[in-house]
Formats: sequence, structure tokens, C-alpha cells
Amino acid sequence: MPHASQQNTTPAHELPLEKRAALTSGADAWHLNGLSESTSYMITDGPHGLRKAAQSTSMDIEHSMPATCFPPAAGMASSWNPGLVREVGVAIGEECVQEKVAVLLGPGVNIKRNPLGGRSFEFWSEDPYFAGHEAIGIVEGVQSTGVGTSLKHFAANNQETDRMRIDARVSERALREVYLPAFEHIVTKAHPWTVMCAYNQLNGTPCSQNSWLLTKVLRDEWGFDGVVISDWGAVHDRVEALKAGLNLEMPPTNTDEQVVVAVRDGLLDEDQLDRMAQGMLDLIEKAAPAMQQDDHPYDLVNHGAIARRAAQESMVLLKNDGGILPLAADGSVSIAVIGEFARTPRYQGGGSSKLTPTYVSSFLGSLHIRDIPVDFSPGFTLDDAKQDAALTAHAIDMAWRNDVVLFFAGLPEEAESEGFDRETIDLPQKQLRLLADIVKVNPNVVVVLSNGSAVSVTPWRDSVRGLLEGWLLGQEGGNALADVIFGDVSPSSKLVQTIPMSVLDDPSMPNWPGEAGHVDYGEGVFVGYRYYDTFGRQVAYPFGYGMTYSTFEIRNLSAIPHDNTVQVSAIVTNTGQVRASEVVQLYVAPCACDAARPAHELKGFEKITLDPGEASIVTFELDSRSFAYWSEPRNDWHVERGTYTIEIGSSSRDIAERVQVELPGDGIRLPLTLSSTFDEWSDDPIGGPILQAAINRLSQQEGHPIIPESDMLRMLLGSMPMNATNVLLGSAAGRLCERIMGLYNASNQ
Amino acid sequence: MPHASQQNTTPAHELPLEKRAALTSGADAWHLNGLSESTSYMITDGPHGLRKAAQSTSMDIEHSMPATCFPPAAGMASSWNPGLVREVGVAIGEECVQEKVAVLLGPGVNIKRNPLGGRSFEFWSEDPYFAGHEAIGIVEGVQSTGVGTSLKHFAANNQETDRMRIDARVSERALREVYLPAFEHIVTKAHPWTVMCAYNQLNGTPCSQNSWLLTKVLRDEWGFDGVVISDWGAVHDRVEALKAGLNLEMPPTNTDEQVVVAVRDGLLDEDQLDRMAQGMLDLIEKAAPAMQQDDHPYDLVNHGAIARRAAQESMVLLKNDGGILPLAADGSVSIAVIGEFARTPRYQGGGSSKLTPTYVSSFLGSLHIRDIPVDFSPGFTLDDAKQDAALTAHAIDMAWRNDVVLFFAGLPEEAESEGFDRETIDLPQKQLRLLADIVKVNPNVVVVLSNGSAVSVTPWRDSVRGLLEGWLLGQEGGNALADVIFGDVSPSSKLVQTIPMSVLDDPSMPNWPGEAGHVDYGEGVFVGYRYYDTFGRQVAYPFGYGMTYSTFEIRNLSAIPHDNTVQVSAIVTNTGQVRASEVVQLYVAPCACDAARPAHELKGFEKITLDPGEASIVTFELDSRSFAYWSEPRNDWHVERGTYTIEIGSSSRDIAERVQVELPGDGIRLPLTLSSTFDEWSDDPIGGPILQAAINRLSQQEGHPIIPESDMLRMLLGSMPMNATNVLLGSAAGRLCERIMGLYNASNQ
Repeated sequence: MPHASQQNTTPAHELPLEKRAALTSGADAWHLNGLSESTSYMITDGPHGLRKAAQSTSMDIEHSMPATCFPPAAGMASSWNPGLVREVGVAIGEECVQEKVAVLLGPGVNIKRNPLGGRSFEFWSEDPYFAGHEAIGIVEGVQSTGVGTSLKHFAANNQETDRMRIDARVSERALREVYLPAFEHIVTKAHPWTVMCAYNQLNGTPCSQNSWLLTKVLRDEWGFDGVVISDWGAVHDRVEALKAGLNLEMPPTNTDEQVVVAVRDGLLDEDQLDRMAQGMLDLIEKAAPAMQQDDHPYDLVNHGAIARRAAQESMVLLKNDGGILPLAADGSVSIAVIGEFARTPRYQGGGSSKLTPTYVSSFLGSLHIRDIPVDFSPGFTLDDAKQDAALTAHAIDMAWRNDVVLFFAGLPEEAESEGFDRETIDLPQKQLRLLADIVKVNPNVVVVLSNGSAVSVTPWRDSVRGLLEGWLLGQEGGNALADVIFGDVSPSSKLVQTIPMSVLDDPSMPNWPGEAGHVDYGEGVFVGYRYYDTFGRQVAYPFGYGMTYSTFEIRNLSAIPHDNTVQVSAIVTNTGQVRASEVVQLYVAPCACDAARPAHELKGFEKITLDPGEASIVTFELDSRSFAYWSEPRNDWHVERGTYTIEIGSSSRDIAERVQVELPGDGIRLPLTLSSTFDEWSDDPIGGPILQAAINRLSQQEGHPIIPESDMLRMLLGSMPMNATNVLLGSAAGRLCERIMGLYNASNQ
Repeated sequence: MPHASQQNTTPAHELPLEKRAALTSGADAWHLNGLSESTSYMITDGPHGLRKAAQSTSMDIEHSMPATCFPPAAGMASSWNPGLVREVGVAIGEECVQEKVAVLLGPGVNIKRNPLGGRSFEFWSEDPYFAGHEAIGIVEGVQSTGVGTSLKHFAANNQETDRMRIDARVSERALREVYLPAFEHIVTKAHPWTVMCAYNQLNGTPCSQNSWLLTKVLRDEWGFDGVVISDWGAVHDRVEALKAGLNLEMPPTNTDEQVVVAVRDGLLDEDQLDRMAQGMLDLIEKAAPAMQQDDHPYDLVNHGAIARRAAQESMVLLKNDGGILPLAADGSVSIAVIGEFARTPRYQGGGSSKLTPTYVSSFLGSLHIRDIPVDFSPGFTLDDAKQDAALTAHAIDMAWRNDVVLFFAGLPEEAESEGFDRETIDLPQKQLRLLADIVKVNPNVVVVLSNGSAVSVTPWRDSVRGLLEGWLLGQEGGNALADVIFGDVSPSSKLVQTIPMSVLDDPSMPNWPGEAGHVDYGEGVFVGYRYYDTFGRQVAYPFGYGMTYSTFEIRNLSAIPHDNTVQVSAIVTNTGQVRASEVVQLYVAPCACDAARPAHELKGFEKITLDPGEASIVTFELDSRSFAYWSEPRNDWHVERGTYTIEIGSSSRDIAERVQVELPGDGIRLPLTLSSTFDEWSDDPIGGPILQAAINRLSQQEGHPIIPESDMLRMLLGSMPMNATNVLLGSAAGRLCERIMGLYNASNQ
């Protein structure tokens, strides 16, 4: 119920000023300041499960109540399955209702700008269309249970380094096309009850005080009618934050009196305070029905089953030479399981999202349940950089004795977390050294990875037969890994971030992680595959890539344009031997354009499950926004007239078919002025004839051509603003300018 | 005579207001407004020779008086020989004196930011240290003859696209480290009489009206005491330009009256107008001695000889498999010369710098003089995209019949010019197709290139034995090519710009050439090899690379630090068989630093000519600036304490030896505030002990540790500004802040 009906409570403006001020601040670290204690509801961290502090009024971040740990976004996103994400959201919401949590602080739809980002595991993708269309399931699911969400961190919170101070300098075009669309889509389509503003500054103003962001874009343009909450400690100036459109400061800083004084002194518009306070009352009212339920026990076993399915769809099969996976579970091949992660899974990231799971399945534990015998060797410890000679020797021995090696590599918890960025995307050296030894004694090695953001596979992927990217899988990860590795289900997930050859290839590296208090988003819109595919850069595995145990064919692409929309359909067929799912991806390549646009952008996807031999039609409705870019001179989205290419395929670099469509464009031309160049006038359908006529007329009047015959002059003239042409044309330029501007203005009336 | 002594003429402020206004504008397209007609001296284009318009009062850009055409900067710079550049400058100055030109409008020391830049051929390098230390010869040489120069285009005029309007958005650090140092070096060391402001805007303000640029940086910081001239047509608002520090608007726009009115209305400070006008009077006075000479004939033959030496040192030998070059001139090998450029040389670029040479030597003509018989086949035409079947067939036949092929490829004049940027760095397709055919019939192909900026060699360099990058060689290019190709002199030049594998590799590509009226310099300081070498990108040929007909060894590197300066020496030995020159290059690699710094930067070079077996010591004195970066928080150059690496070698990627030096740094620390993070306090030599003592004291007072034992809390705390630590520490944070700030302030008194 995203739109709770309004009950008849006292409106904010009728409350005492002090009470209105109090509403816009928390009661303590985790509670709203309701009108009474009973409505001072709790809001708390997530978002891949509920993280409710055990000591619920202060900032104890070490202890939390048990809850189901679903796969963090790093894994979940790879499912390309918003329906499944929604199921997870419903389950989390049910746990919130039972635990009397009114708002879950998530999902986080910041863009994976650079794989080193310490909090990448909480974010959904390097692609904003995908992030918005996938994470929306969390918002829809949670809110369907009567609990709110907090879409975060708004905006451009794409790194941990200096996150509380840094000024993210981002062009408006990059904001509109890359960093805001996931927020925009979810706000306009799923109406999250709250949005959390980010710690950082955006183009010189803290997000908590940024009225462009919190009011103009979020409310005026997108129609957001919920509450903006500060990230914990993000407010620098309470009054400025209220002015900018922040409803709620968390945690409280005992600054209500400042608000009261500001209103009394006329420094804060009382209506604005009332709007912010009213938002809080509305939020409390929306939360009331769920919060007033006495008991709402949830089905722990079912939540575990959902977590298991989510984990199955979170892992991405990147390499499977000779079909080494799935492994036979019948003992016909002997298996060495090497790597501490098989016994001690890494299943979630560190920081505010780290919750206490109700239980944790490990891969080894799952084998035990299935009664599959393996040789296990931990190979390495997780808490030490040194390689242990005895562990190494034992692991090599196990590798040598068995037919197949499952090598569980990954990043220990210390390697990535909220609070800091990574300094390398390499796996720990001791794991790499052990792997190098193991591949010398056994040619049949499958690497299973546990990591929250991309790790480099370049140095070693050629030496192994299989590679299963497990990301972080939540508490059911061990069981799900066994399900996939032994073929109970086919992997069916796809990368939501490019795996580069080297992190140095990332386009943001020259500006990563910024310096002197700012980070320049110098790559503009060319983030992730938008860069790699546009500038022809080799990657290890492209965006959208992932294998299954089957094979698929995508064909019969058709695209029917109508105005600036296009209906697309294609047929996908399971051409392999097992039931599996394919994610059909639709990319749009732009027409020629004055702005530099990415080679193509994802504008649709559909995951479809098929039996062997089965075929199905997939269809897409592309709206005009699918073809638009943000035009800074127009200060709006703009669809250029021209030939666009519809691409359909199974990754950003595996395009099965392409068709071209002609679109009329939106026809919005920039008006000509005397600052427009000679060529801009010449090329304009109205200005061109006017300019030519004026040149002819003035040449006639003066008895000689006012533009001398000279290739060089004509070439230099082209890029000259009309009001600077006197450099080449002398005094005739002034008369020419006067004449064309007069005719042009007349033609526009 | 860079500092002309001041004669006793009427000071500007004693002149009538109208006269003062008139001084700050030209008399016509090419003349100053002197106090009399006889002092209204001419100023005109260069800078690789004198381009004096034949019709000297208007903007006729097609016709100019004959002058010696020296190699444009694209070639000249490759000499790494500032002494030779100075000789060229003297020669150009002599021609100016004879032609009564008071100021030559050059050199242009903009940075080759991207190889597509249409005017790259006029600029000196991708490296600002090199550009400044090489182009300074033009200023010193020309001005030694009593004629002024105009250092241009100030600043950040690094592209032609939309050059008259575009806003170049460049971080101050990138400006200080990349785009300004060449100007800074020449202004402070050689005192050019004038500086020409660029057309474009810089960070939102037109350069012609940019007081930060024209007054704060140029005059106040660098001590410039000359005249700032507008690029032709760069002034948008005459009064704003005068305010900002522009002395002279060119060409005149009949706006003197605006200036007069502005002074009378108090909108323009009269003292500022007086300063600008006084600059013009000083300039005229400086020019007077040379301009008053009745006749100053120059030695045309000697100028040709200088142009020939300059051309010899302008071409870079990039490949010479099996020593295919030099060719024997005695007829022992038969030679096919293929390519129209051998007959019709491309020897200078298009646009305002294009001059009328006194004569032009072609390679074929030079062979004729030397009586070296060759088979010539033009192979292709220069003015047409189509391949001519008959020309192709003839060329292939010639290639097949001879022992060796000299293939003269390059860019026709239409491909690069002032006024537009290139769209590709590929050679024309018809030349590439012909080359592909030729290498099939003859394995001994040497490609000789004529081009003003980098062309891609990736597709074909492996199929040829030799590659001589001839750039643009001026009117003596044909003779100089013969000198080098037949071994009269060894090539001895080095690349001043990286030849990339693909133009798409260039770090500025995502922002090239900008859009919506602005271009973001998103790559920051990572321009050219600063990017390629830092981010490990493969290149075709690195910055500083070039072969000779000999071999050299560089060894015995020693570096002796003293404070923040270092004395460096090394021994270079000619280990080959012929007399030749090596360019010894010194790069500095930075210590660990808060700012992202390039892997290394050129900080010294010396060209040394040695006979076979001869050795010589080269020495360098590195000042503290050699180790500094621009610190935005300090708003100044800053030398960090730490370990720097001195590298010496023969290109940016051929480092012969390295040594490390410890430098004390300048000791300038940023003051701590409550916006400083917990870690910044902890790491500070003064703040650290204060913070620890305060924590201990407060914990004692409260009876429990105010910072709870928690790894996660400690980690999150580290990056928190002290004034935000209440989120984690609660109310103790306020007391902690108060205490540490009090102690810190006390310690600084």
C-alpha cells in the first residue's frame, strides 16, 4: 500500500512551533519523534534483511536482533529478476512488521562508479536503468507489508573515501543520465515512503542542504510526496536542511531550538517547516496500521527458502570449459574442496547493513546434508596475510589426489566494507599463490568466488576450467552453491558490473577517489560499459554476461516505431539440454548527435525460463525516454531526429540481432542568436535561407560579394559566432547581423 | 634585449582620455594605434616564420609576403634543442625587422591535449615542462633582434571545435601543472613583450575578460610587465576586458567611445585604463629601435641553412629494422620513391600561420640535385578520396622493380588546420590500401610521414621495415629528408607527443571536443604520457622516443639532495658507429601523496652530440618545483616529505637508471579544524597527542571509555569529521571537540 489513506489527525500547522520542530528530528538514534511515545516508531538499517539494533535507542552497531539474511545487492542484482527481488522485499517487510520497524533504511541505488568502491556490495549496478528496474522490487515488496523504505543515498554517494565531506562534482548531464535515473524510476513508479539524503556534497552543497536535489528535482519534477531523511550525521545546518527540503534529521542533535528561533527570526519560512513536519505526520500515519498489529509472526522456513532461491539466482557462471559444471553428485568424480570460504562463508558486507542471520549455511555443511563426500582443505586462513606452509601443502596434496578441485577464493570481510574503499581489485596474494600451485597439479579447477565487488580474474582465469562468481549470497549461500554446482538448478544470472582486465582501465581512475575535498566525475556519462563499449576497451567479462547449463538463441528481432516510441519483439529459444533461464537484454544505440553519447545503453531486459526446445516471444515497449539524452542547453530530455539501432542480445557485447529505426525526434530546436555560429545559422531550416538571402541582398547592395571567395576564409567563418564575424567580414558583418536577426525574429512571430 | 630601457615619453595618464582609449585598440587589422602614424607599428602572424599580409591593413588571409618557412612547432619541437630553436627565432626576428613588423604573434604553447586537435601542429608538446623549455628559444631569439613576440593562446585553447565560445572547464590543479607552466616558464625567464589571450572561456569567463588569468596569475604572480593582446575577435566586452587586464583589442571594433563613457561614468577605473594604455606606450617604445632602422637585409641563404638544420632535427626515426636506413646513395640499392608527398611536400599547416615561403625543396628535387636516380610514382593524389587505379598499378610496379621503397604518406592540407579538429588519426584510406599492396610485393618499405599531429601507425607498422616521422618540415624539408635518409646526418629527434595505439585510448576522449558550450577537462593532470604511463596503457611509441643511426648508453646516475633540491649527473656514451645525438631525459616519480600524481614527469633534458666511443657527463639541477604539485587546499605549490625517484633515460618508457632521494618537504601542514576527520587528528604530529590525551581524560572523567571497543566503530570513526562524531560517540563528542580545539589553538600560539 504505497499510498496510505490520510486519517484525520491534527495538521502540522496547528501544532505548537516547538512540536513542529521536534517532529523534524529523531527521538533517539533509531526512533521518530511521534506525537506520543506509541507513535515514535522505529526506523532501522537494512537493506538485504532487517538490522535492528539489540539496544534500540543508541548507536550500538555491533549487536543486532536475528533476521533472515538475504543476498546483498551485489548478488541479488545479478538475478535480473525484479519479481524475485520483490518476494525478498515482502519477506523483509514481514520481519519488519513483527519487529515493529516502520521504515527499512534501503535500498541503496547508487551507481557502481568504480569497482574499488567500498560499499559497492550494497549497490545494484553500474547501469542506472538496471538499478532502478531491479531494486524497485525491494521497495514494492517491503511497502506491500505496510512498512516504508528509504531509497538511498541521494545522491552521488559513490565512494567511501571522505564520504562525509567530499564534494562530488558531476555534470548535470551525468547526473540526469547516470546517477539519478534509478532514484527517478523508483520514486515515480513505486513511491518509497522516504528517501535518504547522502553524506556528501553535490556540486558544492551538502546533499542534506541541497534544495536543487531535495526539492526541485525530487519533489517538483518527480512528484515525491514522502519524507527525506538524513543519512546518520549528514546534517551540517539544521535550518538550511529544512529549507532545502529535508524532513528528518537523524540522529537528533538537540537543535530543535535553533529551528524555533529561525522561524521566529524570519530566517526559516514557517510554511516550509510546516510542510516538513506534515511529512513526518503523514509518515507516522502511513506506518500506523502495520505498527499497531500486536503480533505478526513470519514463516522463518519460507524466508529461508526465498533466501535460497535468491542465492541461486545471485551467482554468475563466467567460465565452464568442457561443461565441467555441474559436477556429478554420485561419487563418480572425486572432489577436493579447497578454501576456507567453503567452511566459513563470506555472505554479507561490513558496516551498517551487517545483520545477525537466523542461521548460516556453508557449502561444506550443505555437502554434509546431501551426503556428498569430498576432501576438504582450508588452504588459507581469512585473518592473516601470511601463507601457511602446512595449509598449502595439505591443499596441494588434496588437489593432486582428486579428479576435480573446487577452489573457494574471495575477499575476507576486512577487504571491503562501508567506511573505506578498496585499494586493489586483486584477490589476496596468498590465495593467488595457492591457486597457482593447485593448477599445476590438477587441470580441473573450478574457482568459486565470494566478493562484494569485482575482483580481477585476468591473471589466472586462463588456468582454470570453471569460474563461478558467487558475490555475497546471504545465509542460504552454502545450500544454493550446492544446488548450482551439482546441477539441481542451472545458473541463470548475469553480470551487473563489468569485470575489467585491470582496475586501471576504469574511466574514473584518474579521478578516483578525488582529492582536496572534491571528486570530479571526469568520465561524465561514460561509466562502466558505457565507457568500455564506446571506446573499444577489452574487458575480462562484459556487463550483462553470464552462462547457464543450457544454450539459447535469440532471433526474429522486430522493431516498429511510432512517433518516438518503439515496439520490439524477438523470439528466444532454449537450444540446449536442460531447463534454464536466459536474460534477454535490449540496448539502444543512438543516432548521430551533437552530444557525445555512449555506444549503446540498456533500455529493457526480461528473464525467461524455458525447457529444452521451448521458445517464447519477448516484447518490449520503448518510450521516448529510451532514446533521449539530457540536453543541457534545452535543460530537458531531448530526442534527436535520426536513425537509432535496437540491439537485442545476451550481454552488452553479445548482440544477437540489430535493427534500425527512424525516429522523428521531438523537434525542439535551440533558438538562433547572434552568438550562434555562421554554420549553425546555415544549417538551421529557418535560419539558413534567411542568412543566404541576407548575404545575397547585402552583396548586391555593396556591389561585391560580402563574403570573399576563399576556402580558408569560409572554413574559419563556419565556427565563428555571427557577432564575431567582423574579424573576417569587416563592417558588413554588423549589417548582416542586424538583417538576419530581424528576419529571424519576424519569422518566429 | 628583453628589457628595453624606458625613454622619456609622455606617460599615458597625461594623454587625453580619448587618446588613452585609442591606444588600447588597433588602428586596423594589423597595426597598433601609435601616438603618430610612424609609431603605429605592425604586428602580424607567425610563428614558424613571418606571415605578413600582402594587403597589410585588412584581413586578407590568402596572400602574404614571402618569408623563410621554418618547420612548424610539430617538427621543430622534436629537436629537443632549444639552442637551435633560438637560432630559428633570431632568423625570424631579422625578417621581421626588415619587414617592419614590431611583434610576431607567437609562439603558441598550448598543450597537445588530444591528437585530434586541429592546431596541434602549431603547439609544442603534450608536456608543459618541455613546451616551455623548448619554445622559449623562439621568444629569446626573436626578441634578441629588437622585435617582440606574443606568447599564445593564453590559456586552455586546446581545440578548434567551437573555439570562439567554448568554456574550457579545467581544475586549478590541472591548469597549474599542465596548461600554464609553459607560459609561466617563458614569461618569467624570457619576458615576452606580449601575451595573446585565447578565444575560449576559462571556467566560465572569456579569457579576454578573465582577471584571474590576465592579472592575478600573469601579472601579480608571474610579474609579467608587457602587453596582453586579444586573439583576433576574442573581445566580447571592451570595458570588461580592460578591467581584466587586456591592453589591446584586435582587430579594432570602433568601441573607443564605450571606454571613454565607462571611465566618465565611473564604470572603469581610470587608473586601470592608464595602466593598459601605458603598456601600449611601453611596447611602442620597446619596438622603436628596430622599427626605425631604415633597412635590415637578412641573409636569405643562411636562413635557408638554418631551416635545413632545423628540419634535420625535426624528424623522428621510429623504426629501423635491420638498419635499413640510411640508404646508400651510390646506386648499390635501387630505390622506388612512392607517394605524391615526395614531389609535393606538405611542409606547414593551414590557417593564420600559413605563410608564403621563399622557396620549397621537395625530396624528389633534392635527389635531383644530388644526382641520385630513383623510380618515382605518385601513387595517389592529394585532393581526392578516391583511389586511382592507374596510379596504384604504377606504384606497385615500381615497388616490385626496386630493392627498397620509400613510401611518402601523410595528411593532405585539408586534413588538419586551424579552424577545425580532426575526426580521425588514421591516414587516408587510399594511402593505407596502397601501402598494404606495396608491402606484399616488397619487404623493404620505409614509410616517411608528413603530418602535423599524431597519425595511427598501429595497423601497418609491423609490415614495414622503417618509419620516419617527418611531421611538417618547412621549406627545407625535402633537402633535410635526403640528408637523413642517405645518412649525411643521423636523425636525433624524439617524440614530443605519445603515439597511441588508438585515439580512443586518449584520456580526454570521453570529453572531446565537449558539448553544450563547454568542454570538461575530465582527465585532470593525466594528459599524454602522464596518463599512459600512470595507468599502464600500451602505446605505439612513447613520449620522448626516437632512434638514431648510433646507439647510446646512459649510466652512473647519481643524485645528491640538498633541502628540496637535487643535483643529478649521469654519463652518456655513444656506443655505436656514427656521430649522433642523444636526448637524455630526466623524469621525477613522486613520493606517496594525498593527491593523485602522474607516475613520473619530465623535469630536465639535454641533447648531446657524441662521436663513436665518446662519453660525456650530463648534469641537472632540480629545484624544489621539480618535486612539487599544486595543492588546492594550500593554494600553492607543495613539496611533500618523502622518497622521490630520479629516473634517467631515453624516453618516458626507456628508463636506463633510477635512484631514490629522500626530501624533507616544505613542511607546510594544513591546520586542523573540527571539520578534520578523526584520522587526520590522529595522524597529525601536534593533533594526535592532543586527541589521545583528551580521550583519556574524558574517559577518566566519565568512568568509562568514551570510544567503545569496537573494530567497526573505530573504522567508521576514522573518516568522520570531528564535528560529526556525535553520531557514534553521542554527547561525549561535543566535549571532546571543545577540548581538542582549545588545546590545539593554545599549542599554535
